[in-house]
Amino acid sequence: MSFVISLDAMGGDSAPQIVIDGAAKALSNGLKCTFLVFGDEHKINPFLLKHPQYKQYFKIIHTDEVITNEMKVVVAIRTLPKSSMRMAIDAVAKGEAAAVVSAGNTGAYMALSKLLLKTFEGIDRPALATTIPTLTGQALVMDFGANVECTSENITQFAILGHVFGQRLLKKASPTIGLLNVGTEEVKGNAIVQEAAQKIRNLKHLNFHGFVEGDDITSGTTDIVVTDGFTGNVALKTMEGTAKLIQKMLEQSLRQSWRGKLGYLMAKGAFQNMKNRIDPRMHNGALFLGLKGIAVKSHGGMDAFGFANAIRVAASLASDAASGQIAEDLERFLKEEK
Amino acid sequence: MSFVISLDAMGGDSAPQIVIDGAAKALSNGLKCTFLVFGDEHKINPFLLKHPQYKQYFKIIHTDEVITNEMKVVVAIRTLPKSSMRMAIDAVAKGEAAAVVSAGNTGAYMALSKLLLKTFEGIDRPALATTIPTLTGQALVMDFGANVECTSENITQFAILGHVFGQRLLKKASPTIGLLNVGTEEVKGNAIVQEAAQKIRNLKHLNFHGFVEGDDITSGTTDIVVTDGFTGNVALKTMEGTAKLIQKMLEQSLRQSWRGKLGYLMAKGAFQNMKNRIDPRMHNGALFLGLKGIAVKSHGGMDAFGFANAIRVAASLASDAASGQIAEDLERFLKEEK
Repeated sequence: MSFVISLDAMGGDSAPQIVIDGAAKALSNGLKCTFLVFGDEHKINPFLLKHPQYKQYFKIIHTDEVITNEMKVVVAIRTLPKSSMRMAIDAVAKGEAAAVVSAGNTGAYMALSKLLLKTFEGIDRPALATTIPTLTGQALVMDFGANVECTSENITQFAILGHVFGQRLLKKASPTIGLLNVGTEEVKGNAIVQEAAQKIRNLKHLNFHGFVEGDDITSGTTDIVVTDGFTGNVALKTMEGTAKLIQKMLEQSLRQSWRGKLGYLMAKGAFQNMKNRIDPRMHNGALFLGLKGIAVKSHGGMDAFGFANAIRVAASLASDAASGQIAEDLERFLKEEK
Repeated sequence: MSFVISLDAMGGDSAPQIVIDGAAKALSNGLKCTFLVFGDEHKINPFLLKHPQYKQYFKIIHTDEVITNEMKVVVAIRTLPKSSMRMAIDAVAKGEAAAVVSAGNTGAYMALSKLLLKTFEGIDRPALATTIPTLTGQALVMDFGANVECTSENITQFAILGHVFGQRLLKKASPTIGLLNVGTEEVKGNAIVQEAAQKIRNLKHLNFHGFVEGDDITSGTTDIVVTDGFTGNVALKTMEGTAKLIQKMLEQSLRQSWRGKLGYLMAKGAFQNMKNRIDPRMHNGALFLGLKGIAVKSHGGMDAFGFANAIRVAASLASDAASGQIAEDLERFLKEEK
């Protein structure tokens, strides 16, 4: 089965190059889809020319308007009716594409997606979620940057979205949910997490574990970790930075002695294996949960390899028949809780 | 030169054992100090008996009252006038000890330290700071859990404390300061970091780098990273968890093949070296900055080795003649900014 995926060619630090190269990479990996590419055709075409074998898989829709990372969200929305990001999202809203991928301004992407795709009944704001590797498998973490100011009601809705999507994405009947805090004791935290915990506890059909701490994210204490977008963004980027630090320290240590160098050569495959498991590019592609349409966010600093992974995430959601049932799951959940 | 250090024997998950064993370890490492130990003598004595050679270095002051981790701060302060933590801090306030170390309830420790030791003029709330290893050396990160709700004014004061203490602790004339956020662009973040950035920019004598992101903490982008206690706590615990995850993944990868196993044996020293560099016990001992007295916080889950390190931090501050000058530095800074 083949899908149409719409791409914001102008979002991300190295756009449009990584977008086009990433899409070509996804095709060369065997992905069955075609692309609607929104952006400046003069900038896009030189990169498309590098992949003549995939020419027929791309359709460019030209636009000059670009939302930059520095732009305020209100400005991006009000003054740019034809931005590449907006048009790419709109293609999903109009049913011309099954999913959209952008590496652009997260705040604008979130606001435009909400505006054009709409949220499910009972959900005020979509949550940006991503899976991360843990000691026991993987965890779904949200929000990680789309909602930098959250009320306790927003966080409670993230927990509901986590539950409904987690059932599908993690294939668990009743995924455990942790609320990120500075301690696990019930009295810990600020007013917002305290209120959110109270609200989540009142939802009878959620498998709420209670508070979790920063180190619980990677230890796999719960299947789902819920937090506001400010904290979640800092936590996930801190994970990335720490992974880099440790790899660097290990390299330095190994280089200091001939035994270390020899050991490295012997175990090179094992090191590469570990590197692959934590490669942020392998985990690129965050999902906006709660929208009536599939929108995937790529990290702005990704290369083509990482962008191809974000496309893979979008395609796998679009092809997953189950994803259509999520709206039903959510509706049932909210009805049962009433 | 010998110091008196006061210890809250009842704080931390494995108290009083780790407190007494940790103090004995500090002594066996050659630290020149004696200890005032506050807590339940019936619980403390059995552990002291294990270290007969150091008997004369300990003086126990008995009290039954203990502040638990589950206790609300107001309850801990109002209902327990003779808690081990309070008495240990009070020993510094009365000049009987040069520094206090506790692994107990962070919120209560912060509130009691503020109450008994007082903050410097111009500082409303102390910041809990710790050094962490980075790609380029080390960074001073604050607040990491004492102030879970911060105003932009609090965060601005943390930046000032970071500057003044950073000069001494990091031995840099003008340490660079980063404000933790979800993006480096000026428009990014919530209202509090936006306001704080504005206030910090107005301080002419601070070397303000601007916003930094989670991965900048470990990459060493700035000497000092300032944030609210909620975000800081989550970030630092996420670092710990990620370090554990990567070590575990590496072990798993190495065990999967005979080449991996052999490589590990060859390079065992290098692995141990790396482990030591990121061992959270080596970095145990966070400082309350901004108090007119030295108060050091040990992680609640530490073992004796980690607690000994927190004592080492307290002793090194107490012995550093420069620390007496920090009050002067701060006073001068605030005067010059006016």
